[in-house]
This record gives sequence, C-alpha cells and structure tokens, in this order.
Amino acid sequence: MVKIGIIGATGYVGAELLRLLLSHPKVEVAALSSVSFVGQEISNVYKNFLNKTDLICESADEVVKKCDVIFTALPHGLSEDIAKKAIDNKKICIDMGADFRLSSEDEYEEWYGKKFTQPALHSKSVYGLPELNKEKIKQCSLIANPGCFPTTIELGLMPLLKNSLIKLDNIICDSKSGTTGAGRGLTINTHFPEENETFAPYKVGAHRHTPEIEETLSTMANDKVNVTFTPHLLPINRGILSTIYCSPKNKVNLEEIHKLYLDFYKDEPFVNILPLGEIASIKNVRLTNDCFISLHLNHRQDQIIVVSTIDNMIKGAAGQAIQNMNIILGFNETDGLNLIAPAF
Amino acid sequence: MVKIGIIGATGYVGAELLRLLLSHPKVEVAALSSVSFVGQEISNVYKNFLNKTDLICESADEVVKKCDVIFTALPHGLSEDIAKKAIDNKKICIDMGADFRLSSEDEYEEWYGKKFTQPALHSKSVYGLPELNKEKIKQCSLIANPGCFPTTIELGLMPLLKNSLIKLDNIICDSKSGTTGAGRGLTINTHFPEENETFAPYKVGAHRHTPEIEETLSTMANDKVNVTFTPHLLPINRGILSTIYCSPKNKVNLEEIHKLYLDFYKDEPFVNILPLGEIASIKNVRLTNDCFISLHLNHRQDQIIVVSTIDNMIKGAAGQAIQNMNIILGFNETDGLNLIAPAF
Amino acid sequence: MVKIGIIGATGYVGAELLRLLLSHPKVEVAALSSVSFVGQEISNVYKNFLNKTDLICESADEVVKKCDVIFTALPHGLSEDIAKKAIDNKKICIDMGADFRLSSEDEYEEWYGKKFTQPALHSKSVYGLPELNKEKIKQCSLIANPGCFPTTIELGLMPLLKNSLIKLDNIICDSKSGTTGAGRGLTINTHFPEENETFAPYKVGAHRHTPEIEETLSTMANDKVNVTFTPHLLPINRGILSTIYCSPKNKVNLEEIHKLYLDFYKDEPFVNILPLGEIASIKNVRLTNDCFISLHLNHRQDQIIVVSTIDNMIKGAAGQAIQNMNIILGFNETDGLNLIAPAF
Amino acid sequence: MVKIGIIGATGYVGAELLRLLLSHPKVEVAALSSVSFVGQEISNVYKNFLNKTDLICESADEVVKKCDVIFTALPHGLSEDIAKKAIDNKKICIDMGADFRLSSEDEYEEWYGKKFTQPALHSKSVYGLPELNKEKIKQCSLIANPGCFPTTIELGLMPLLKNSLIKLDNIICDSKSGTTGAGRGLTINTHFPEENETFAPYKVGAHRHTPEIEETLSTMANDKVNVTFTPHLLPINRGILSTIYCSPKNKVNLEEIHKLYLDFYKDEPFVNILPLGEIASIKNVRLTNDCFISLHLNHRQDQIIVVSTIDNMIKGAAGQAIQNMNIILGFNETDGLNLIAPAF
Repeated sequence: MVKIGIIGATGYVGAELLRLLLSHPKVEVAALSSVSFVGQEISNVYKNFLNKTDLICESADEVVKKCDVIFTALPHGLSEDIAKKAIDNKKICIDMGADFRLSSEDEYEEWYGKKFTQPALHSKSVYGLPELNKEKIKQCSLIANPGCFPTTIELGLMPLLKNSLIKLDNIICDSKSGTTGAGRGLTINTHFPEENETFAPYKVGAHRHTPEIEETLSTMANDKVNVTFTPHLLPINRGILSTIYCSPKNKVNLEEIHKLYLDFYKDEPFVNILPLGEIASIKNVRLTNDCFISLHLNHRQDQIIVVSTIDNMIKGAAGQAIQNMNIILGFNETDGLNLIAPAF
Repeated sequence: MVKIGIIGATGYVGAELLRLLLSHPKVEVAALSSVSFVGQEISNVYKNFLNKTDLICESADEVVKKCDVIFTALPHGLSEDIAKKAIDNKKICIDMGADFRLSSEDEYEEWYGKKFTQPALHSKSVYGLPELNKEKIKQCSLIANPGCFPTTIELGLMPLLKNSLIKLDNIICDSKSGTTGAGRGLTINTHFPEENETFAPYKVGAHRHTPEIEETLSTMANDKVNVTFTPHLLPINRGILSTIYCSPKNKVNLEEIHKLYLDFYKDEPFVNILPLGEIASIKNVRLTNDCFISLHLNHRQDQIIVVSTIDNMIKGAAGQAIQNMNIILGFNETDGLNLIAPAF
Repeated sequence: MVKIGIIGATGYVGAELLRLLLSHPKVEVAALSSVSFVGQEISNVYKNFLNKTDLICESADEVVKKCDVIFTALPHGLSEDIAKKAIDNKKICIDMGADFRLSSEDEYEEWYGKKFTQPALHSKSVYGLPELNKEKIKQCSLIANPGCFPTTIELGLMPLLKNSLIKLDNIICDSKSGTTGAGRGLTINTHFPEENETFAPYKVGAHRHTPEIEETLSTMANDKVNVTFTPHLLPINRGILSTIYCSPKNKVNLEEIHKLYLDFYKDEPFVNILPLGEIASIKNVRLTNDCFISLHLNHRQDQIIVVSTIDNMIKGAAGQAIQNMNIILGFNETDGLNLIAPAF
Repeated sequence: MVKIGIIGATGYVGAELLRLLLSHPKVEVAALSSVSFVGQEISNVYKNFLNKTDLICESADEVVKKCDVIFTALPHGLSEDIAKKAIDNKKICIDMGADFRLSSEDEYEEWYGKKFTQPALHSKSVYGLPELNKEKIKQCSLIANPGCFPTTIELGLMPLLKNSLIKLDNIICDSKSGTTGAGRGLTINTHFPEENETFAPYKVGAHRHTPEIEETLSTMANDKVNVTFTPHLLPINRGILSTIYCSPKNKVNLEEIHKLYLDFYKDEPFVNILPLGEIASIKNVRLTNDCFISLHLNHRQDQIIVVSTIDNMIKGAAGQAIQNMNIILGFNETDGLNLIAPAF
C-alpha cells in the first residue's frame, strides 16, 4: 500500500484529510505531524478518531522520511521548505496551503507579504484543479491544491470562459462560506454566541483568494480577467456557495448554455449540472467531493447568474487533494471519494 | 390614546407588530383580526403573549370599525378592499403587503398575476420609506409599507443615486434573508432539518421585489435603473443583509463617499453609517428598527460595494410601519422604536 | 449480490437507509417503494441522490416480489401485513417501525391505540438490539429494529442491569433528540423559525418509547424495571443524547463500573466506552453507527449518571437495521458501517 | 436620576445589563469599568451600542466614586473588595458573581478553592431571589444575585418545598443552557464549528452551582435537600431550561399542585405557570425577565416533573439584578423589565 503522511494533521483540513484517507481502499496513512501535539494520539485531539486509528503526532521530518505521498496542511509560508525536502527525496507532495497557488512571486508578495523561499520549485508545481489540469497533474509530483472559494468560482465559470462567451472586465463573485473555513484557531468572530444567528461579509475587496481566482480565470479565458470577490461567513459548519454574476458578450440562450455545461463536464465525476429551473444548494454537496452548479438569467435576460457550491473541507480542500493523489498514482479518480450527501 | 387595529395579526408580521405596539407609549392596540383564529386569544397562537395581552381575534370588519389606525398584514391582493373601507371611513391605513407598492398596474399584473381591485385608491397612497418620502407621508392616510429586501437596497443606494454618482444599467443586489421572511406557512424548504446547515438562493432572477426596487431606485435617480436581484435564504431567524455592487461613473474616493453618506443620513434616527474599515453585520440590527450601512471598494478600486442590513421583521416590516404611523400622527419618529440590539 | 428493497423510501429513515446501502459492499438496492411518489425517481425527492442512483419508487408489492431482504420504514400499523407477505415468501424482513417492538398486545394497544393485525407473526420476531440479542438475530427472519431513544438507554444501562447493580423502581431517562427524529412531515414545531434557538421537552410522561424501554430493561434485569422518560427536541439535525440517572444498590466504585462496561462491550464494534473523566457528546457519533457512553457520579457519589449518545438516524434507525441484516446474512457486522464521525 | 455604575461592563453579563438599563425609565448609567478596555468606548467593543451611548470604560474606583448603585459583573473572588468599598461609602452593591451566594465559607472554599476576603461583609448580604426574599431585599444594600441555573431550579421547586410535598434526598435537576452562559472568553468548546450541531453535558456531578442550589432549596424546605445537578450546553445563544424530577411524599393530584403553583406565584410579575397540558419552552422567555414553569407527571403518576425556563442573561443575571435594584429603590418591580419575548 502507498504510505501517506499528513503534515499539520491537527488543523481542520488535516483532520478531515485523515478522516477521508482512513476509508481509502488503496492507501495507508503511515504518519502524522503536528507542531502543537507532538507525541499525542490524534484521537486525543479529535475524539471522533477514538478506536478508529491509534496514530501519534510526530515531527514533520519523520513524516517525510516514512511516507511516499506527503500532504501539507499548513499556514502559508511553511510548506515550501517541506515540499523541497519531499521532492528532493522523490516523494509526491500535495500542498493544501497557498504557497504554490500563485505563479507570480510579485503577486504573492503583494497579497501575502513575503517572498518565495524556494523560487526554483514553483515551476515544477501544477495548480491542482483536476477539471482544468488533469493531464499535467498526471505528470507532476508537486501539487498546489486550490483554495476553497476559487474552486467554486473556477468550476462555475470555466465553460463560459473557455468558450469566450462573457465579458472579462468585471465578474462579480459573491461567496458565502461555513465557519470551518476559518479553521480551528479561536477568534471572537467564531465564538459561538457571536457567530450564531448573524451573517456578514469579511475582508471585503481584500481577500487573498482574489489573485488566485483572477490568475486561473485568466488562464481559462486566455486573457486578463478581473473579478470583484466578496466572501461572507455563514453560521453553518460546512459548505461554500458562490453566486456569480457575468455579462454575456452576445444575446444568450440559457438552454444552449446549459447544454454547453452538461457537455463540458460530462466526463467529470464530481461536477453535477442541475436541470434548468433547479437551484444549487449547499445541502446537495455537504460531506462529498461534488460541485453542484445551476444556471440562471436575471429578469431582463441580460445577465448570467451561475450558482456553484461545494463542501469547503472536501472539494475545497481535503477531497480535492485526494482526487489529485488518485490521478497522480493512477487510481480511479473517485477512489475513497464515493460519498453521498446526507439529505439532512 | 390612539386606537390601533391589526388585520392579519396571526401571521409573523402581524404578531411582530403587536409585540412592538404593546410597548408603544402613545397608542393602544384595540383590536386584532385573523381569518384562521377568529374567537381565539392571540396568546393561544403565540405563547409569548401569555399574560401580556388578552386580545382576541375578531373579523376584519370589526377591526376597521373600532380603530383609528389600521395595519394590514396580509398576502397580496387582500388589502385593497380593506384599505378602501378604512379610507372611506377617514381612518389611516398602513398596508404591510405588496398591494400598493407598485405604481404601475401593468407591472403589478406582470409580477403578481392580477389587476388592482381599487385602482382609484392607488394615487392616494405613498410609498412608506420615510428616509425618502417623509414629507409626503405626513400628509397621507394610506401607506404602502416597503418590502424587506427593497428597504436594504434603497437605503443602501439612495445617496449615490440622488447624487448621480453611479451607472444605472446593471446594479447587482445579492441579498440574504433569515427564514422569518418566508412567514409562518409550512413548507419543505423551511422544515428545520431541510433548512438547517444549508444555504441557497431562491427565485433567482424572478423575485417579486424586483420591480419595487427598480421603481424606487429609478425615482431616486430620476432615470431608469436596472437591477439584478438575487435573494438567498439564511439558516437564521431574523435579518437581511444585501451586498450591493455598483460602478461609479467617475473615479471614486471612498472617504468622500463616506462623508456623503454621513451627511445624507445625519438627521435620520434609524440609519447608521459605519466608520470606514468596519463591515455591517446582521447582529448590529437584530431586533431593532435600524439600518446599518458600510461602504467598500473592490481591490482594483473601480467598483463600489455597499453592505446594508436590517431586521427584516422590524425595519423591513413592522417597525417601519410604526415609524410611518409615528410620522403621520405627529409623534416622535422613534416612539416605541428605541430598541438596542442584543449583542448576542 | 443480495437484493434489497426499501418500503417507505421517501421518509427520512428510508432515505438514510438508501444512502448507507448504496455504499454497502455486499448488497444491491433493487427496489424502493413510496406511497406519495410512485413512479418518480428518488433523486427527484432527495437531490443528494442525483447521479448516485436512478432508482424509481414502485409499489410495496413490487418491492416484496423483487427482493430478498425487505426493510419497512413506515408509520406504526402499516408493517405487519407487509411483513406477513415477506415472511410467507421466505424473505427476510427488518421493520424499522414500532409494530413488532412490544411483545404485549395489551401494552401495544394502550400506547398505540390499536391491536396487532398479525398476532401470530409476533412470536417469530426478535427485538433487533444486536448487543443484547445477537444469537437470536442470527436465526431470525423478522426483526423489530429498536426505537432511537430506547437504543441509547438500553445500551447505556445494560451492564448495570445484567449485573443487578442498580435499583429498578425509578430510573430517570432525560433524553434529547435532533429534529430528524420527527421525520419529514411538516409541523409548526419543526418550522425553522419556531424550532431554531429554542429547546423544550415534548410528550412529557407520555412518549410511546416508554413501554419499549421498560420491556427491554426488564428483560435485561430479569425483573420489572420502571422508568421516567422525558424526550426533548434539540435545534440540531441529528443525534440523541440520554442522561440517565440511577441509584446503585450498594456503595459504588466508579473505576470498577468503568471496567465492567469496558469488559461487557469489548467485542461490540459499535459501543465505545469513554475514559473516565471524559463526557460523551453527540459530535462523537454523528453520521456513524457508534454509541458512545461515559460514566459519572454525582457530587455525593451516591447516584450513577450514564451519558449515552448515538446518531438517531443511523444507530437509532437505518444503521442498526443494516447491522441486523449483516448478522442475519453472515456478513461482517461492520460491513457498510465503517463510518468515522466528521470532527466538525 | 439614580446614577448607576457597572463594573465589568465588557463581559456578557455587564453588556446585557447596560443594554437593559439604557431603556430603564428611572435610572441613568453614569459609569462603566473594564479591566481590558479602559479608555475605550463601549461601542467599540459591542457595535450594538453605536449611537446608543458614548460611555467610556473607566477604572472600578471611578465607577464606585461616581455612582449610587454599583453592579459588579466579575469572575468570582473579585467582587468582595469592591463591595466593601461601595458599602463603606453608603452605596448599594449588587453582585452578579458568586462571591456572596454561599453563606458557608467552608462550602465556598470547597467549591471555589479560596476563602472569603471580606468575611464580615457576608452577614450583610441577601440572596437576591426576589420571589423568596423580597422583604429582606427591600432593607438591604448588598445583594448576591443568584446564579442562572439555580434560578430555574429554585423557582421551579419553591411551592413544593415550602409545602413539604416532596422527598428531599435526591432531586434530579437536568439543566440545559445556551452558550452565552459560558461568557465571552474564547474556548474550543464554544468555537462555532465545535459547538454547532452538537450537544453534551459538562462538569457532570461537579458544577459550582450545586451548593448554591442545595443551600437555597434547604432554606425553602427548612431541612437538608440533596440534588443531583447536571448542566448541558445547548447550541443556541440564550436560555436555560431545567427538567426537574422529584418524588412526592404522598399520592399526587396534578390539578391540585397546579393550583398551588398558580396561587403561590399569583403576585409575582415574572413567574408564569402554564396551563396543564402545555410545556414550557425557552422561546417563551427569550429576551425577557420571565420564568415559565410547566407541571407534569410521569406515566405511572408517581414522579413529578417540573419544567422551568428563563433567559439566562436576563432573569438568570442582568434582569434579576435590575429587579433587585427596583425593589431596593422602591420602584415598580417591573420598571425597565416590561419585555415581551419575540415569537421567533
């Protein structure tokens, strides 16, 4: 069995990855690391693992040494050196943080306030949105797993952009995320009595996923795309839903666009285009690796509205990382990811 | 004391109006009506009224006869005839439904599927957004109390539109509402296990508040305004937050716009403009008649983002109706509405 | 592959059973029935099944004819005749309703207001709590799958009762359930704005699970057990937690009781006894077939407090039914039920 | 106007007290203190106070100097010295913490791990449950405002205990509280994704409210009362509901007990006894100073079940403190507390 290591296993993304990989038929999780909990069983940190695994948190170095595939689930700026070590040792590295998502170091510095620590490594990495880059991913050992918000927006717009159907100068992306997206760190905004029964945007006009979205959409369009991206925090645990507004270049027929989407994604196991008239909802995708998309026009029929939704912890993080691993290792793309959303 | 009647007192808007009016210092609720609960105490229907009032539901006719001010909280199409009777009898009528909100009967027929039953009455009604129409409201006996979504959007955009600062051809209004907006009627979408832990838009491109928004914004702009309006359902009880995207005609300075808003609303007791850098949140306004507005630019500084939030049951319905009543009766505009949001 | 049929597939229990069985490695769901949705795809009723199954709702008769194992997920009083037909045709029938749970027809009539329609069949049925009746279940074709509340209480008390350690005359069972326990039927109590942000007991002193609990506990104790059982409704979707208060016959040593529980359940794959000092929580078991139990004393050390928690839809319904099926068919008891609770 | 000071105004109890007092017709909040936010406007800490008050946090000493009535909302152990200073200066002091709730210093030391710092002061304090001690409160300048859980249990049992109707050796109090009870301090248990959609007890058999409950119930019974008290944390913001199980000394007639309760509380403005057959619910009391009580028997009619519910922040803290102030100052007991629960 392929030996898997998770670096940063006690954060939310790491813990979700562990949960999913423990049910994967073709791999074995061989080692975990955590800065804060070295020497402790993961089931001490998350009781849901009691009697499911007795893995103990080790150092990152141990994990790299023991494993064939290394997943890094770390705050930005901490993955590059680990990735270097992994790649130098002929391992596969899938980074679930932001370190390899932007190709431009200038852009990275502008939004993240620091330079690349391993600039040479970046050219070897591939942006791990399988529906966009599957062939490149197959050949690659270093994956930049996409951000959660960008995944919804990129999958939602790809058929329109690849077919040059919409204007590129101001696409509005109004996105809403559950609170797991904010991670395990305690903040007043995620203190239960403060977040429950309320709703608000955050980082308006300034969220770090903006350059990732613009770079990837520009690649799809083969031209510069500008977006206005506003994230909001929902008082639920899981799920992202993006409502995307774009202007068609020419008069639009919604049936044709719908057919285009169905055709575009017909071989993609995780992208589901809803029938016209239905509306995508977070509950369609919760606890799955699926992306559900529904298509709409405004009342004057001159504006396309794309609704795109995923589970932020799965297709937006851990599940997409496993999908990338499956592609690299030649497994079925859906291995370990055959998940059906609970209806309630 | 002025005698108040509520027609449709057992719906959510009617019940909220009753709760607020029971604490109003200058009026007395004298009669209630309900189609489904005639003869029953309102405290049988809503236990929160136990030992607070012993009012009993009567017929609508009784209410009109007994009272000086009639509030109608009814599904569309049912208020016109009652309003006729009230006005003919020199009473004041404040309609919290949709019957008098649109000035064009054609537009009304297109969106609501029926014609006006009292067309002559419509010219006597005023759209009851006090921040827009205060002087007209003072002179009027028949008020069309605004819809909840329109209130957020109209207050959010009025200073920009009155000053001709933005383009009018496609304003994006991405709005999110708590579930009380859907009322007391049982539906699968508001069944707890179906609505909890999820989020989705509804009536995309087709919500009946669209023509109301467009008519009022056009009045403000003195020119035709087009909007794309998408409502979403939040898994919370109360509150609407609208994220509004608009394009300035010329290069924008956010400080100047902020000053404009502060100045524009400086005499309005219920509109609060947040300091630049802060973001409006539903919890700022829950259980109050306030509207909180925050102002933002996107990262390229070429798109204005207005965040506007109210309590849908109060400023979006019952509270605004009381505000209109206060204005008509010459009371302090804030009488009965001096509410402070619970912090949690 | 064994052919499975679900009668009542569009209710919450039926739908959850379908979701779990679609991932079971050794069976095939061959047919579904529903009174309200005959002829419709199940994915029309529950969108989470879109692209996961194209099964269509048929009549109950068709299901019995086509399948080897019949699961009935029906309101009480409707399963007996179907079970008769299944058993007569040498099929296996697992009833997830209440029809076969009580051995006494008088007791059944007292609590459910009707008599048995197939009284002869009842002697052939076994109460399907595997931790109590595993050997009997292996030999049986007709299973009375336990109620959700009873499962928590029975698993929580079995080691104490089998070892005659507690008094039997008044055990207090204070139980709290998520709203899925109320099913898919619309009621004002489960209307989102009415149930959100509140909490209350229901059917105090009068819930129909009471005689089931008392009968099973009496079997365990080999003596008459009396309980006071109070169910409460939690504003969450899934999970039941019962806080159970009982008086030891003699002075208690908590460490010894804890060892007793660990030993009693050491071969049971789904019952987890938490270390002393930890407290069972619904999040330990959500979306799994597990039961977590923690053990405590009050501050004077003279009262045992057992906290027992399950997912009401899985160990409390669909999952336990599959566990029973696995036992009857000679599969691994955990087949299709190797589920790890999401940590968040 | 009477000048009010709040010491510890930035905690949840202090902030709620401020919110309520700003609407009180006969007092003026003159000063606030906070250790962490000295020099800052309270509206910086809680945006709900924006444009409602411009009070600035000062030192505790300043507050005592400026005000006539001092409310202390502090962690245990910090109020005694402040109370001393207030009393020495002929001020009124209402302590919302635990410092003066227990009469026995030994008991205090056992549960809180420290001794009294002002032991002489304790004999001057009165336990501020108005329904029990109204006459004493009128004469007193130092109030120990009751804990939130104890308030529900003491009001729920007082008529039974005062009339010697129940056994005293083991009353079971199964209590459930919203998360505001845990305060503003960040913990992993109140991190939104950890607390949402779950439910569990905490501090089983060991909560510090236990001795307060036992002391007060013993006073009522004029004999030693023992309780088993288990608090649970509900995924809601506000409200406590206690389900209380007690054994009658003799055969019980529920109608008689109900009449007894109605009569016992007939002059108490905040205690509401529901009609027989109805069940108290947190939504009856949210955002009010009310306590709702419903009465039940188990199915064998040999165990009384009392359901008692309050808003933990109001009748369980800030509202009850105002009620005590009203009594001491000779105001109407309901001044500033005429609150009606929102129905949704």
